Amino acid sequence: MISRRVDRVANLDSLVTMLLPMEKDRMVYKYISFASDIFEVRDVEFADTKEQIVKGGRDLFPLLPKAFEGIKEVGVIGWGSQAPAQAQNLRDSLDEAGCDVKVRIGLREGSSSFEEAREVGFSEDADTLGEMFDIIKKSDLVMLLISDAAQAALYKEIFAAMKPGATLGLSHGFLLGYLDSIGESFPEDMDVIAVCPKGMGPSVRRLYEQGKEVNGAGINASFAVHQDKSGKATELALGWGVALGSPFMFETSLSSEYRSDIYGERGILLGAVHGIVESLYRRYQRQGMSPEQAFVESSESITGNIVKTISTQGIKAVYEGLSGDDKEVFKQAYSASYLPSKEILQEIYDEVSSGNEIRTVIMHGKRINKFPVGKIDGTDTWQVGEKVRAERDEENIPLNPFTAGVYVATMMAQIDVLLEAGHPYSEVVNESVIEAVDSLCPYMHYRGVAFMVDNCSFTAKTGSRKWAPRFDYILDQLAYTAVDNGKPVNEDLISAFENHKVHAAVEECCKLRPTVDISVGSSSSTKEIVIE
Amino acid sequence: MISRRVDRVANLDSLVTMLLPMEKDRMVYKYISFASDIFEVRDVEFADTKEQIVKGGRDLFPLLPKAFEGIKEVGVIGWGSQAPAQAQNLRDSLDEAGCDVKVRIGLREGSSSFEEAREVGFSEDADTLGEMFDIIKKSDLVMLLISDAAQAALYKEIFAAMKPGATLGLSHGFLLGYLDSIGESFPEDMDVIAVCPKGMGPSVRRLYEQGKEVNGAGINASFAVHQDKSGKATELALGWGVALGSPFMFETSLSSEYRSDIYGERGILLGAVHGIVESLYRRYQRQGMSPEQAFVESSESITGNIVKTISTQGIKAVYEGLSGDDKEVFKQAYSASYLPSKEILQEIYDEVSSGNEIRTVIMHGKRINKFPVGKIDGTDTWQVGEKVRAERDEENIPLNPFTAGVYVATMMAQIDVLLEAGHPYSEVVNESVIEAVDSLCPYMHYRGVAFMVDNCSFTAKTGSRKWAPRFDYILDQLAYTAVDNGKPVNEDLISAFENHKVHAAVEECCKLRPTVDISVGSSSSTKEIVIE
Repeated sequence: MISRRVDRVANLDSLVTMLLPMEKDRMVYKYISFASDIFEVRDVEFADTKEQIVKGGRDLFPLLPKAFEGIKEVGVIGWGSQAPAQAQNLRDSLDEAGCDVKVRIGLREGSSSFEEAREVGFSEDADTLGEMFDIIKKSDLVMLLISDAAQAALYKEIFAAMKPGATLGLSHGFLLGYLDSIGESFPEDMDVIAVCPKGMGPSVRRLYEQGKEVNGAGINASFAVHQDKSGKATELALGWGVALGSPFMFETSLSSEYRSDIYGERGILLGAVHGIVESLYRRYQRQGMSPEQAFVESSESITGNIVKTISTQGIKAVYEGLSGDDKEVFKQAYSASYLPSKEILQEIYDEVSSGNEIRTVIMHGKRINKFPVGKIDGTDTWQVGEKVRAERDEENIPLNPFTAGVYVATMMAQIDVLLEAGHPYSEVVNESVIEAVDSLCPYMHYRGVAFMVDNCSFTAKTGSRKWAPRFDYILDQLAYTAVDNGKPVNEDLISAFENHKVHAAVEECCKLRPTVDISVGSSSSTKEIVIE
Repeated sequence: MISRRVDRVANLDSLVTMLLPMEKDRMVYKYISFASDIFEVRDVEFADTKEQIVKGGRDLFPLLPKAFEGIKEVGVIGWGSQAPAQAQNLRDSLDEAGCDVKVRIGLREGSSSFEEAREVGFSEDADTLGEMFDIIKKSDLVMLLISDAAQAALYKEIFAAMKPGATLGLSHGFLLGYLDSIGESFPEDMDVIAVCPKGMGPSVRRLYEQGKEVNGAGINASFAVHQDKSGKATELALGWGVALGSPFMFETSLSSEYRSDIYGERGILLGAVHGIVESLYRRYQRQGMSPEQAFVESSESITGNIVKTISTQGIKAVYEGLSGDDKEVFKQAYSASYLPSKEILQEIYDEVSSGNEIRTVIMHGKRINKFPVGKIDGTDTWQVGEKVRAERDEENIPLNPFTAGVYVATMMAQIDVLLEAGHPYSEVVNESVIEAVDSLCPYMHYRGVAFMVDNCSFTAKTGSRKWAPRFDYILDQLAYTAVDNGKPVNEDLISAFENHKVHAAVEECCKLRPTVDISVGSSSSTKEIVIE
């Protein structure tokens, strides 16, 4: 085991490759210290390891002019999940900080998103909205937030259009994964950075707005400095994160980021929670519940109770709040579900790490005209869910201990796969816990599974469709049958859960941001979130 | 469109690559004429194209000594799905033909399969059973029938152990796909051929035994001549197919074979039929049926009625046998299911063609100690199925027109994806129709889904587990909701079905083999098929 602390180098991925030629696939990330002359870098104890972070907050906005030194023109390219949120947050923060920076939106000629961008204050008249390549040509920082498939299709033209000395900004490591898979790389003469909010775009905007009242509310972000020719890349990345309203930022590499991100959304963030709900909804009906009650005990129990407990008190609080028979039922469900869920999660991780999943997304993009992404919530489960939501008593949503056992086991299995692959706790906790309970599940709670899944990127929503049924089937085939056949609780698994080091790391991460109730339904800052 | 008939070359795949550099992925196969000095090569009209085949039959056994000229020692390596059947058929046929050829089994040291091989007459005493590398070293024809994952792990040692001039025989193109995916190839100095029965091993043996009474009963096989240094490779491949009892043999390439084979088993052969049954079983219960009745109308209707009609009268006969409301229900189900099923099938085809699916199988193999292949039939569906089978009235299994519409639409979508990719009719009909109705569904009929799936190779049974849930979800989400929402029948799809050229090709293929009722339950020739 190589020490988790090594000297800083510009390209983290090369370092990992160099140091760990045999272990590249398993140990994708080594913790690396970073320095800033502008922002305070803090050591944080996550479980048994130290990591470094920068805390965000609106009180840091006065530092933004220095962080954005040399950047006069920012081009936000695209209008998907992240772009509307990030463009508005950046514009508002830089305005408030008195920065002389113009934030522009660049879109495909004829895109229907021009109108949406105008609705939130970007316009051709003010020279803050235009054709994407026109915007790219004049930007000092190109924030490339178009879909992964579009990045793969257009990267050559985009690199060629960028002006000398401009910085390429990403919110995801996907493009690196794609370039790797075809044996190409970024042009050497540019800075390449990433700031990756650990939540979908609409919640990045929504929590930022709440942050105006509650200092530090927002979505955490990881950042990566992939190429640093100017020597200023770290400061710019941190400034970007602060301007987005991130409560804290931690460093990762583009490679570690895309692995954990693409993996996480296929797991507990989107795919797994969908599959879990479907499988439990059927199971509870087989046991005699009405469809409505089965929906309450599965989906509602997760989004209206379990994730709220995790968000405010941590994962173990769900278990510790149970007693007697309920605790036993939790243990049975946990113990039967952990390994089956982990089997699918390890498969996802391997598919992502090997490049397979990226190729799948690209190929899927090529079929999309023939087979458009279909509706997933017209089925019985989600039709019943709509009825249940209409009559919901928010204060009296039950915690079903069996549901809790299955959900928590899957979350813990997701955490273990990431830790075993060498990801740092900041990334693990954000990709497996905080993003689920603070950013995504509130959307499912508000309007059902499609509202959560389809507010995410193409990579996420197609990946979620691909993997949800796998969790459903394996839980039904291996976990629930084990419980029904009276298989005894695996006390080793329960004890590993009770004593898991992630609990301390979750606690630490929670301290770093105020707990904000996202309450999606009550108001909204993006067009996608309909006010009811 | 390049002509479907080109001159013969030794390496078909290189030719395709050479001729079709831009279209390699889409047009994997071009029909190529072949010649034999021993067996009669016939032209067959399949729909609007001509293909060449060799008809098999026990009356051709006297030609085997000539086809096996120069082969004195055959080593059948492995004891999975194919090896027990092929080794016994080959031994029995060569004996009957009076060939002076020794057929031996080679197994891993300490393998539990030694005992099973002894039970069917191979033994150390008779020098027909031994350690795999010992057997490989002395064989003139090495029939490499170990699992795909084992082939990937051991190919170097195996190639190195083979004696000069020996022929490598495969029953699947997987190894080529694997070598391609890692940039390697077969040693240039050996003949490489494949004979690929279009059915699982147990049915290859079972129909061969029936063939003793009904001349020509057996499982069709494709063959491929990948390298032909000796100039005798085609004759040996045809001899091997005749000795297996194949009613007819058609030529393919290793590349075309692994694409269609790995694709087909994930589709209607295993994965799709599993997913279809699960989705219909739930649907019929939601509509008010008892679990037992729902199982009868879904699974039983397919395995006990629909596939029997297809086997004896062709695909369209299922539809033509319906009238009035039933015909309308079929049309609704067909029209709603065709595109959703095709979406998943096209995804499977792309995953297989790109090499992704082969990497997935290899990675899965590496996880297998931690996550053994699990049981799929402990769930409610298949527990109910067991009860239904126990009380089955074989003569009165209903044909549910909705079930028929979904099943036939998926079969037709599978056919269309293969035809659009350029596969020849022989391959398309065998991989999408005959293997389903004659070889696989009878196993599901006899003992349920796991008995069918788990009698197949590791590549097949893990692929089936992966894709079955995808068919289930997409049919539930897109097809059944369309029907329930009153979406009108797409008459273009129905008309395309009615006038499809595949119907003539199925008819032609059926003429080439006697219709044999596989009746799995009544007797058995392999250990895996339990007699009840």
